Amino acid sequence: MLALLDGGKSVKKLINQPLDFIRDSLAGMAIAHEDIIKVHFDPTFVYRTQAPTQGKVAIISGGGSGHEPMHAGFVGMGMLDAACPGEVFTSPTPDQMLAAAQKVDGGAGILFIVKNYSGDVMNFEMATELARGEGIRVVNVLIDDDVAVKDSLYTQGRRGVGTTVLAEKICGAAAEYGYHLPQIVDLCRRVNLHGRSMGVALTSCTVPSKGTPTFALGESEMEIGIGIHGEPGRERLNLQSANEIAEILALSIIEDTTYSRTVREWDEDKGEWVDVELIDPPLHKGDKVLAFVNGMGGTPLSELYIIYRRLAEICHQKGLTIVRNLVGSYITSLDMQGCSITLLKLDDEMVRLWDAPVTTPALRWG
Amino acid sequence: MLALLDGGKSVKKLINQPLDFIRDSLAGMAIAHEDIIKVHFDPTFVYRTQAPTQGKVAIISGGGSGHEPMHAGFVGMGMLDAACPGEVFTSPTPDQMLAAAQKVDGGAGILFIVKNYSGDVMNFEMATELARGEGIRVVNVLIDDDVAVKDSLYTQGRRGVGTTVLAEKICGAAAEYGYHLPQIVDLCRRVNLHGRSMGVALTSCTVPSKGTPTFALGESEMEIGIGIHGEPGRERLNLQSANEIAEILALSIIEDTTYSRTVREWDEDKGEWVDVELIDPPLHKGDKVLAFVNGMGGTPLSELYIIYRRLAEICHQKGLTIVRNLVGSYITSLDMQGCSITLLKLDDEMVRLWDAPVTTPALRWG
Repeated sequence: MLALLDGGKSVKKLINQPLDFIRDSLAGMAIAHEDIIKVHFDPTFVYRTQAPTQGKVAIISGGGSGHEPMHAGFVGMGMLDAACPGEVFTSPTPDQMLAAAQKVDGGAGILFIVKNYSGDVMNFEMATELARGEGIRVVNVLIDDDVAVKDSLYTQGRRGVGTTVLAEKICGAAAEYGYHLPQIVDLCRRVNLHGRSMGVALTSCTVPSKGTPTFALGESEMEIGIGIHGEPGRERLNLQSANEIAEILALSIIEDTTYSRTVREWDEDKGEWVDVELIDPPLHKGDKVLAFVNGMGGTPLSELYIIYRRLAEICHQKGLTIVRNLVGSYITSLDMQGCSITLLKLDDEMVRLWDAPVTTPALRWG
Repeated sequence: MLALLDGGKSVKKLINQPLDFIRDSLAGMAIAHEDIIKVHFDPTFVYRTQAPTQGKVAIISGGGSGHEPMHAGFVGMGMLDAACPGEVFTSPTPDQMLAAAQKVDGGAGILFIVKNYSGDVMNFEMATELARGEGIRVVNVLIDDDVAVKDSLYTQGRRGVGTTVLAEKICGAAAEYGYHLPQIVDLCRRVNLHGRSMGVALTSCTVPSKGTPTFALGESEMEIGIGIHGEPGRERLNLQSANEIAEILALSIIEDTTYSRTVREWDEDKGEWVDVELIDPPLHKGDKVLAFVNGMGGTPLSELYIIYRRLAEICHQKGLTIVRNLVGSYITSLDMQGCSITLLKLDDEMVRLWDAPVTTPALRWG
C-alpha cells in the first residue's frame, strides 16, 4: 500500500514511499537506458555507461531533484559525463560531486555547471576544492539566467533555470570535439551571459514528502516569474491568455537591460577563488536566437506549442531570428502546471555545437 | 484577455480562445518544426514538408485531438506521411482524410491506421471509399489493443491506445524501406495483434471548451483501465503505490487470454468490405517485448520511470525479455495525471523497423 503522510493523506502521484521517490525514479531511468547511463547510490550520481574518454574534458552538473529530466536525463554522449541529484529541491552534497568527479575524470579537467542557488553554489565550491586536493582540475561556472527577480528565496542574484539545459548541450558537444578546459569554461560563461529566461506557474507543485501544494494560487491566478522550486516571482496576476502570457515572458526577456554582477570563480592561473564581474549584453535587433519553450511538468505539450506560436511572432516583430528551437518539458518543477521561455543569443560556434550529435535519455539526435 | 467559459470561469491552461486550442497548437508545432511538417487548415491535416516519395506507400493516421504529440507529432521521415486531427476527443471528418490522402499519395497506395472508436472507424471507412473513388488505393487497419474493457463509451470492442504509436513507427519504417501495401497491412495487423495496453488515471482531464473535469475522482481514488478520453475503465480503487499500480496494469496485460473479434476490412482482391476474424495470441514465457510506459499529459517523467522500474521487474519474473522500450508522454489525454503500459511482442523484423531512423517532432533518432 501507498504510505500515508502525516494526517493520513495520500498524495496523487505515481510513487511508492515518498522518501524513495528519487531512488526509484533514478533506478528506473538507468534500467530503461542501460546502454547510455548507470546510477551509483550512496553517494548518488549518474554517469555514462561507456568508460570516460581519456583526454576529454568531463562535464558534471547537478542540483536538487524534481526537475527531471534535468540533469540525469542529460548524461550521455555529447552532453554530461555525470549528474549529481540531491533530494527533492535540495542541493546534492560535496561527496556526491567528488565521487562523480573521480569516476569520470579523463585527465583533461572537469567543468562543474552550477545553477545559481545558495546551497548548490556552496557545495559545488566545496567539491571543487576537494577534487583539487585530489589532483583533479575542476572549474565551476554559474548559470544565472532568470530575469524575473534579482534575489530570491534560495538565491543571491539571479536564479539559474532554462539556460542550464542549453549550456549542458553546447558545452557537452565542445568537450566531445576536444576543446580544452579553459575554452569550455569561456564558452559556458558566454552561453550564460547570452541566455535569459522567465517562467509562469498556473498551479503549485507538490513535494512528495510533504503531500500538499508548496504555495497557494487562487482558481483564476497565475504567478509570473515563478522559480523552479515554487519560489515567488514578480507578481501574481489574474490568469490571462496564452498569447498574453507569452508576451509578458518574452518581453521581459527581450527588454531586459544590461545586468552586471560579481561572481566567485576559480582562477586557474592564480590557484585561488577570485571575484569576477560579469555583464549580460542586451539582445539587439538582428540577433539570431535559440527559442526554448519549457514545460513545468504538469502542462501537456499541446499547450507549449500555443506559447511557441506567439513567441515566434514576437521574436519576428522584434527583429530576432529564431534559428533553432526546443519545445518540451526539460527543466521541470515536479507536477507544476506552467512554462518558461528561454532565449539564447547564438553565434555560429554555438549553432554548430547545438547541432552536434547527442545521445542521452532526454535529448537525442544527429 | 482569456475568454471566460459559461459561468464566468476561466480554465487553467495555456490557451487563448478554447475553440482555437487545436488550431493554435498545430500552428505552433508546424512553426517549431517547419523543416519536418506543414499544417493545412480547412480541411485540417498535417503533412511532411518534403514532397511525397513516388512509389512509397503513404501512411496516414488521425483521430480526435487532445492526445498530443499523437498523431501530428509523428509525421515525418520514418513514420507518418500525414495526420488528421479532429476537434478535442472528436473524430476527424472524411474530407480531412481525403484531402490528406490526395496530398501525400505517392502512387503505391495508402495505409490508414485507425484507432478503434466508432466515429473514427466510420469516418475512415467513408474516406477509404471516397479515396478509392478517386483512384487512390487505400487500406485501413484498426488498432484495438486496450485490454481493460471489451466495449466502452465510444467503442465496440476494445479501444485503440498505446500500440498505435508503435504501429505508426514500425509501419512507417517499413514504408521507407519500400515494403508494398499488402506487406505493410499484414505488418500493421501483426503489431496490433501482438500489442496490449492498459492505463490508469489519478485525475480527470479537462476539455478546454468545457472548462470542468470530464469525470470526478475522489481525493484518494484512481480509475483503473481508464480510456484516453476519460471513459470509465474496469474499476475505481483507492490510490495505491506505483509498484502496485504497475503490477495491476502489467499483470492485466500479461495474463490477458486469447482475444478474438470480427473486424471490417477492405479486401483488395474482392474490392469490397469483408468481415475478418482476428485473434490476439497470448504472451508466452521467453517472448521478447517492447515495453512502453506512457504518460497521460499531466504526469511528469520522473514518475513514469518509477513505473518502468517495477514493470521491468515484473517482465523479468514472468520470463519476458524487454529488448526495447519507450518512456514518455506520447499518447496523452490533455492534462490527465496517470499513465498507461503497453507491451508489444517483438519479432526480429519489428526490432529492425523500430530501430530504423525516424525524424518527427516527437520521435527522432538514427
